Amino acid sequence: MQNNKAKVKIIPLGGLEQIGMNITAFEYGDTIIVVDCGLAFPDDEMLGIDLVIPDVTYLKENAAKIKGIVITHGHEDHIGSLPYVLKELNIPIYATKLTMGLIENKLKEHNLMKTTKRKVVKQGQIITLNDFRVEFIRTNHSIADAVSLAIYSPAGIIVHTGDFKIDYTPVFGEVADLQRLSEIGKKGVLALMCDSTNIERPGFTMSESTVGKVFDNIFAEAGKSRIIVATFASNVDRVQQVISSAVKYKRKVVIEGRSMVNVVNTATELGYITIPANTVIELEEMKNYPDEQITIISTGSQGEPMAALSRMAMNLHKKISIKPGDLVIFSSSPIPGNEKTVSKIINELYRRGAKVIHEDAHVSGHACQEEIKIIHALVKPKFLIPVHGEYRHLIKHKELGRSLGMPKENIFIISNGDVLELGDEGGAVAGKVPAEPILVDGLGVGDVGNIVLRDRQLLSKNGLIIIVVTLQRQSGIVLAGPDIISRGFVYVRESENLIEEARKVVCNALESCQNKKITDWSKIKAVLKDSLSDFIWKQTKRNPMILPIIMEV
Amino acid sequence: MQNNKAKVKIIPLGGLEQIGMNITAFEYGDTIIVVDCGLAFPDDEMLGIDLVIPDVTYLKENAAKIKGIVITHGHEDHIGSLPYVLKELNIPIYATKLTMGLIENKLKEHNLMKTTKRKVVKQGQIITLNDFRVEFIRTNHSIADAVSLAIYSPAGIIVHTGDFKIDYTPVFGEVADLQRLSEIGKKGVLALMCDSTNIERPGFTMSESTVGKVFDNIFAEAGKSRIIVATFASNVDRVQQVISSAVKYKRKVVIEGRSMVNVVNTATELGYITIPANTVIELEEMKNYPDEQITIISTGSQGEPMAALSRMAMNLHKKISIKPGDLVIFSSSPIPGNEKTVSKIINELYRRGAKVIHEDAHVSGHACQEEIKIIHALVKPKFLIPVHGEYRHLIKHKELGRSLGMPKENIFIISNGDVLELGDEGGAVAGKVPAEPILVDGLGVGDVGNIVLRDRQLLSKNGLIIIVVTLQRQSGIVLAGPDIISRGFVYVRESENLIEEARKVVCNALESCQNKKITDWSKIKAVLKDSLSDFIWKQTKRNPMILPIIMEV
Repeated sequence: MQNNKAKVKIIPLGGLEQIGMNITAFEYGDTIIVVDCGLAFPDDEMLGIDLVIPDVTYLKENAAKIKGIVITHGHEDHIGSLPYVLKELNIPIYATKLTMGLIENKLKEHNLMKTTKRKVVKQGQIITLNDFRVEFIRTNHSIADAVSLAIYSPAGIIVHTGDFKIDYTPVFGEVADLQRLSEIGKKGVLALMCDSTNIERPGFTMSESTVGKVFDNIFAEAGKSRIIVATFASNVDRVQQVISSAVKYKRKVVIEGRSMVNVVNTATELGYITIPANTVIELEEMKNYPDEQITIISTGSQGEPMAALSRMAMNLHKKISIKPGDLVIFSSSPIPGNEKTVSKIINELYRRGAKVIHEDAHVSGHACQEEIKIIHALVKPKFLIPVHGEYRHLIKHKELGRSLGMPKENIFIISNGDVLELGDEGGAVAGKVPAEPILVDGLGVGDVGNIVLRDRQLLSKNGLIIIVVTLQRQSGIVLAGPDIISRGFVYVRESENLIEEARKVVCNALESCQNKKITDWSKIKAVLKDSLSDFIWKQTKRNPMILPIIMEV
Repeated sequence: MQNNKAKVKIIPLGGLEQIGMNITAFEYGDTIIVVDCGLAFPDDEMLGIDLVIPDVTYLKENAAKIKGIVITHGHEDHIGSLPYVLKELNIPIYATKLTMGLIENKLKEHNLMKTTKRKVVKQGQIITLNDFRVEFIRTNHSIADAVSLAIYSPAGIIVHTGDFKIDYTPVFGEVADLQRLSEIGKKGVLALMCDSTNIERPGFTMSESTVGKVFDNIFAEAGKSRIIVATFASNVDRVQQVISSAVKYKRKVVIEGRSMVNVVNTATELGYITIPANTVIELEEMKNYPDEQITIISTGSQGEPMAALSRMAMNLHKKISIKPGDLVIFSSSPIPGNEKTVSKIINELYRRGAKVIHEDAHVSGHACQEEIKIIHALVKPKFLIPVHGEYRHLIKHKELGRSLGMPKENIFIISNGDVLELGDEGGAVAGKVPAEPILVDGLGVGDVGNIVLRDRQLLSKNGLIIIVVTLQRQSGIVLAGPDIISRGFVYVRESENLIEEARKVVCNALESCQNKKITDWSKIKAVLKDSLSDFIWKQTKRNPMILPIIMEV
């Protein structure tokens, strides 16, 4: 079905500028398929924002063309936006068993099970979605059942690695299906879209099973300590290894933290975690065992303030307190931006007398340089589109492609919203679709934009001062006020003089407005604001938000 | 002068919980001496705060006893609070030449030169301050002229390392005076107060001069690129090495960024940097040279938003724009908490076509485990007080002391404000003095406390809603309003319905107050606040600050 003149459109709606929030549309003729549908967590500047989801305007405008969402694995940055998108678009989902199990947890929570078509696929399976066929190829990642995709389009084959590493000795399943990638490569691959997360790291990522040996050593030497292991709930293989070490060293296991309980339940039901009988106990049963027989597996490895481990460290957990002798293992490494939060939790744990291991008990889920080169050598793509990574990682992946002999013009660094039209003869960005991330704050989706964020930033830095005054409708005579109210500006009790002087400044400004017969309220407001702002800056070198309010009677 | 029953008081006023802000008082009888007087930069939660300085209430209450401030080296976290403290206390300063040069820059800025006694000391010198004698011992750090201190007290000798590493091949000066430390150790040392920053790192910290070789290699291969090196202004030896490589590869040098210009001027005047004639050029002269003859040494290695490099990366710098081909070297590693900011700047630089080197061109200024062990072996202290580090570093230093054979009870993990009374027979925390860090916001010192910060946090997360209403004084009849004004809450134009409904909720609440004849305004305010807060939470799952204002006419 390949056609030398045919062109496929590749449209990333997220995942390239913003880490996480992976979602890419592939379009040919009357068919669109979507790969992944993730969310992102807010940047530091996105004050008060809970989640970030993609703008799917383009998908909504082309709803009739969409034949399915294909998911590579069950991490939040690949499945987290599904509930939001499925509320607007009814599209069937294709995913492997564990991935679908984790998706279904979300669908249940959002009451979307009945309306959403779901098809569980096997690694190795090929599905047909109109003009596209999609093959699910076994790969390795920090969650089981991950796949790379071969997308067969009339313009040629696109191989999308998803998030991957090559693990020759994985804890669950087998090594990535390198033979199949090689076979597809032999057929001729139009483009490779390849994970760039660890492109700066030389060599190979260690196997997940090496962490199991580290756990065994730690457990062997833990003596009478209670052991608490914090890791990502979604790292099912990691949890399995903690459980295996616990069993080996005759410890019971407590699963703690909402997402940890959810994921472990799903993974156990579906056969991705094997737990011997009488191993897992309830939190309440912990008191029946001495510390040396206890292992707690907990959320909070990123220092998230509301997660179980953080609450234990801050002594805010209702049922578990950290005590001298506890051994806490961070089986994780901090995601960029979380370093300081994690570090604070570690200090708190030490303060309560715990010992903390925060290195060595973790390996990455992403491929390093040599693994990426293996994929290049097997797939031998004509074109390269680096994905999954910050901008600099994409550029470094481009440099790696060049070092492997790819011509410059065959490597595309594209942005969210770009419409890349790609065919055998080359490709070009032929258009742009909306792809600004949408901010979710509480129940509000998209009602917080740049203006609101700017206000929050202003308020967070210097607080605000409100001037409120009641004027007589016709005459403009002051009937009440002006009152000055501040929040987040200064500690008022110790700054009474400043506030009183500020009131005088406002009184004078009002008087001068009256003398000048200014009756336009927006002008009066501007005068009040400017004069107070000047005064405050001179007195304090600060710029609080100033909000004049005029009432008329 | 030693006395077996004598006890010296050691009182850290900062530097132990909060990284930076190093300041410690030593007291015996009628004498107090202070070691260092640094500032800290605010934590993420300290919204809008510029600087953090120590609480010196205890020093003010004992002003008559204070004989001098002794400074170990010229970094902000050791000298930055001097202007604030000297405005309240007139104390003579003792420091080596470069350190004093950097201090004097500050004193000039704050108009404190005339009133402050200053005494420049040499490495190796001993000064007498009443009951104490202080010896300045040559050490190595990421700034020249750093010293460790031997403090001779009637209770015994205390060795304070200051920030240090052991550099056998420093760029300026000589290796730390290990022989002298050994001599003092032979005499018998009561206590060692030792830098713990890198206690988690095994082995040795590399010599500063190794970075020069890295620079040489980078410069040799830079071809036609303009080179921009970002580093700490205060790392005088680093700046020297960039200049040396520039000279070697026939490039001119532009010094950019206010603190970089200040420090380089001071260090050059005092002989700590040697610049061959016709090497440094003005920014304006840059256009007369091709890129391959230019090196820019700049501030901004931590991604600080207002620093020169960040402004270049964001295209906000008035005179330098990053262009394709530029080679940017981060000669630094991100301070914990700055990782993401640095990463953003790197991405921006790549976006503008620059190449970025952000590893390898840096070494730490602090000692690793093996160096710390050398100090222990030379000084052989009876007691150990780990300093400079987060809590967990202090604990790990304690573990290192234990592994070297020190008894548990001879190692003191103390907190800011603790008064440790220490003598030959042992020590104990015998009291507590005020040591909560003081927040500086603009001109305000200490007028922003926890209440203000909590308000800023609330405002930053969900913004605020103001309810304003004018009532008739006696009757309580509504004369104007209620008006609803929000900032940082929702984008009002798209949420008109929500705001209008909120107004109705407030109207109803007001009406019910009137029906119930509630006339106490604080009660009315509480009713308005609660009813609106409930409504908003149900509608949006958000908790904005709600501020009811009642005016009376």
